[in-house]
Amino acid sequence: MTETTENNTGCEPPSPQQHITFLLRKYKLVEGLVNLQDLQDQSHTVSSVQKQNLAELQNYLNQLHPADIAHILEALPLEDRLLIWSLVKAEHDGDVLLETSDAVRATLITDMGNQELVAATEYLDTDEIADLAPDLPQNVIADVFRSLPVEEREQLRAAMSYPEDSVGALMDFDVITIREDVRLEVVLRYLRRLEELPDHTDQLFVVDRNEQLKGVLLINRLLVSDPETLVADVMTAEIIKLHPGDVAQQAANAFERYDLVSASVVDDTDKLLGRVTVNTVIDFIRDKAENEALNLAGLSEEEDIFAPVLKSVKNRWGWLAINLVTAFIASRVIGLFEDSIEKLVALAALMPIVAGIGGNSGNQTITMIVRALALEQINTGSAWKLLVKEVGVSLVNGLMWGTIIGAFTFAIYQNAELGLIMTMAMVLNLLLAAILGVLIPLTLRKLGRDPALGSSVMITAVTDSGGFFIFLGLATIFLL
Amino acid sequence: MTETTENNTGCEPPSPQQHITFLLRKYKLVEGLVNLQDLQDQSHTVSSVQKQNLAELQNYLNQLHPADIAHILEALPLEDRLLIWSLVKAEHDGDVLLETSDAVRATLITDMGNQELVAATEYLDTDEIADLAPDLPQNVIADVFRSLPVEEREQLRAAMSYPEDSVGALMDFDVITIREDVRLEVVLRYLRRLEELPDHTDQLFVVDRNEQLKGVLLINRLLVSDPETLVADVMTAEIIKLHPGDVAQQAANAFERYDLVSASVVDDTDKLLGRVTVNTVIDFIRDKAENEALNLAGLSEEEDIFAPVLKSVKNRWGWLAINLVTAFIASRVIGLFEDSIEKLVALAALMPIVAGIGGNSGNQTITMIVRALALEQINTGSAWKLLVKEVGVSLVNGLMWGTIIGAFTFAIYQNAELGLIMTMAMVLNLLLAAILGVLIPLTLRKLGRDPALGSSVMITAVTDSGGFFIFLGLATIFLL
Repeated sequence: MTETTENNTGCEPPSPQQHITFLLRKYKLVEGLVNLQDLQDQSHTVSSVQKQNLAELQNYLNQLHPADIAHILEALPLEDRLLIWSLVKAEHDGDVLLETSDAVRATLITDMGNQELVAATEYLDTDEIADLAPDLPQNVIADVFRSLPVEEREQLRAAMSYPEDSVGALMDFDVITIREDVRLEVVLRYLRRLEELPDHTDQLFVVDRNEQLKGVLLINRLLVSDPETLVADVMTAEIIKLHPGDVAQQAANAFERYDLVSASVVDDTDKLLGRVTVNTVIDFIRDKAENEALNLAGLSEEEDIFAPVLKSVKNRWGWLAINLVTAFIASRVIGLFEDSIEKLVALAALMPIVAGIGGNSGNQTITMIVRALALEQINTGSAWKLLVKEVGVSLVNGLMWGTIIGAFTFAIYQNAELGLIMTMAMVLNLLLAAILGVLIPLTLRKLGRDPALGSSVMITAVTDSGGFFIFLGLATIFLL
Repeated sequence: MTETTENNTGCEPPSPQQHITFLLRKYKLVEGLVNLQDLQDQSHTVSSVQKQNLAELQNYLNQLHPADIAHILEALPLEDRLLIWSLVKAEHDGDVLLETSDAVRATLITDMGNQELVAATEYLDTDEIADLAPDLPQNVIADVFRSLPVEEREQLRAAMSYPEDSVGALMDFDVITIREDVRLEVVLRYLRRLEELPDHTDQLFVVDRNEQLKGVLLINRLLVSDPETLVADVMTAEIIKLHPGDVAQQAANAFERYDLVSASVVDDTDKLLGRVTVNTVIDFIRDKAENEALNLAGLSEEEDIFAPVLKSVKNRWGWLAINLVTAFIASRVIGLFEDSIEKLVALAALMPIVAGIGGNSGNQTITMIVRALALEQINTGSAWKLLVKEVGVSLVNGLMWGTIIGAFTFAIYQNAELGLIMTMAMVLNLLLAAILGVLIPLTLRKLGRDPALGSSVMITAVTDSGGFFIFLGLATIFLL
């Protein structure tokens, strides 16, 4: 773990990003000069300035933490990004690739030769190579396999076999194991012989002859205990054991609830396979929150903000297509009532209000239910209670906002019946929104689907078409 | 840190939540019986069964980790929640309160007497009391202050003084400090004299006589180094130093980027004030992601899913009111064109399509920009590039989807000009969405506001009213 000083009070020094931009501009300024001067055949003098600036840039860059380099690359347009990338030392390449977003990583990998890619993996652990693997060309992966010693080859194969959202995909193999029948003093001597401990080593894993996990020795316990004590006497036997096939979210929940720094991963026979550490869990939580936000807006994956136009169009395609379909259905519902609208054109101006408020209210209900489902706060007994409550909320909201809207309608169109119909339509559409806002996510869950995915689109489709139908239908029956 | 065994493969044992529900039902079943039997005057025999069941429930409950108890309380309707809460041991009360959501915490605190509340804080650290303080009655806080020793009273006052989203609010005071001129052996002996180390102690803080921070001694370094070495020779001098006034998000970014377990907090003179640990950071990240999701849907705060109807209505009030206003404006825009709609009623059926797709496309742009702003990927130079790109994406989308919609329109209404106007309106509204999708969040940011808050409402308002105006305006000019 490399650490850097961050000083954010008083007069702020330039951030690494600002400094790189400055050096880059300086370099490019001279590069522009070179092209001019080339024509005048004085290239060699200016070229030395250029070289010097480039060296300054490279020097500064390679002092930075790989995560900071990744961040700088993500914030640069493609051309500058590749220039900077070519200056990063080969030994940092792998770490930087690990830290970039998928979209930006793809642009960097495309720019690298196969040999360069294989070389980049040499500085990585097998679990890290497995994280990169989906983005690497097939023949690079084959070369990487060939370059690894047998044991690591097996680890890589195992790591690559776990599905993306499983505990196995979060796991690393940096475990220190000890036996329970030794004294702490022996453990301390054993540790001292290691040059360094793996990051996030807050516990040592106590295993028997068959590598079965018996417990853990917390480092904090090791430090405060008498060196003459046996491991068995100070180890913790009741521990969190994750399994590689568990969903990653379960591991994240355990880390959050029990404030873990690392946790063991074992197979069905309790054999120790590896561990999950808190930094991986943080990355998982962040990625997940981000993906949810992107999916809600209909972006199928994170987007390189400097991606070419056509690539971005593709990323946003699916959602707009779905929306077009639901908008068409709503349009056809209105089409059914064209005669009514022709007779009373105010209906056209009022109908989007009913649909819009219904959609908003439905989305509030959906958000609450999806969140409660994710936190496992809903069971069969409480589902009914929730439905009753949401219906109650929508009744109150419908009567309240419906009355306000009804009054406005009356004020504008001087038509009391029209106002009354607005109120009725609001109440009914909010009821529809509440009932389906509870039922849609619960049904998706029952069907084994992710309730967060698509339920917002569905509720909006229902409240749009439903809102138009209810309002125009009521008007047709009672007014015309 | 209490640890529990989680076993998720094969035949699953009931989760704590399921088990509590089972025990609760058992208890209530008997309680129901009691009421029946009371009438027949046989209460004393059944009452002993009831007592036994209650004891079983209480027993099981108090073996659980406070975080698990909090989770169970959140998933129970109010009446059951308070029953279970009354069974939790007083010494766990504080920890459980810390782990519950704000909304549920309020229901629990309302149920407790002042004395009980003061007692609950006795088992908490000062930074934890500060976290609870906003929810405690004023006189309870006064009593707590009186009960604390002077030093802790000062800590509590300091902790309570930091604004909610600052590093100071995440900070705790559990630091172990050492001097740089001692040998590691002395450090080891010093640690052994402590009964236990604070959770998440992955480093000891090296300070001088004035409590100024000189560096840190990583525990992992301590363990592998020769005990005869001086602290000064193995300590890390270049470290992350947070300041209590920094925004908490900065600390979270540092933890995520540099994979930290703990980080020092210092004042302007480098005096060590405390530390931030990774478990607090995880809670912060989760809370933040959750609040963003809730705000997007217009829920002003997290809601107890079993909250009474009127409380929920209040929580959802603001958003619906704002939406009502924007819907009214859109409605008045349509009202301007009532003559046109009367002449060609198909306009009424088609206009929601233009508005809807514009809103979706605008929200995609907003989401991308807000995310890029949060990750600090946008500077003045790249803002222009982004605007050009988004305009390009919306042109492609507009022409593509616009043509499809135009063709459908022609197919349904047999009116080529109407189809053409649909296409034009789509292109123009998507352009409007793209331009404002970039400008709204950037402007909010310039004004020092949170670009995530409200930009989605604003873009939808613009694309709704704008879409109606563009489509109906074009139709009025070219068709009628």
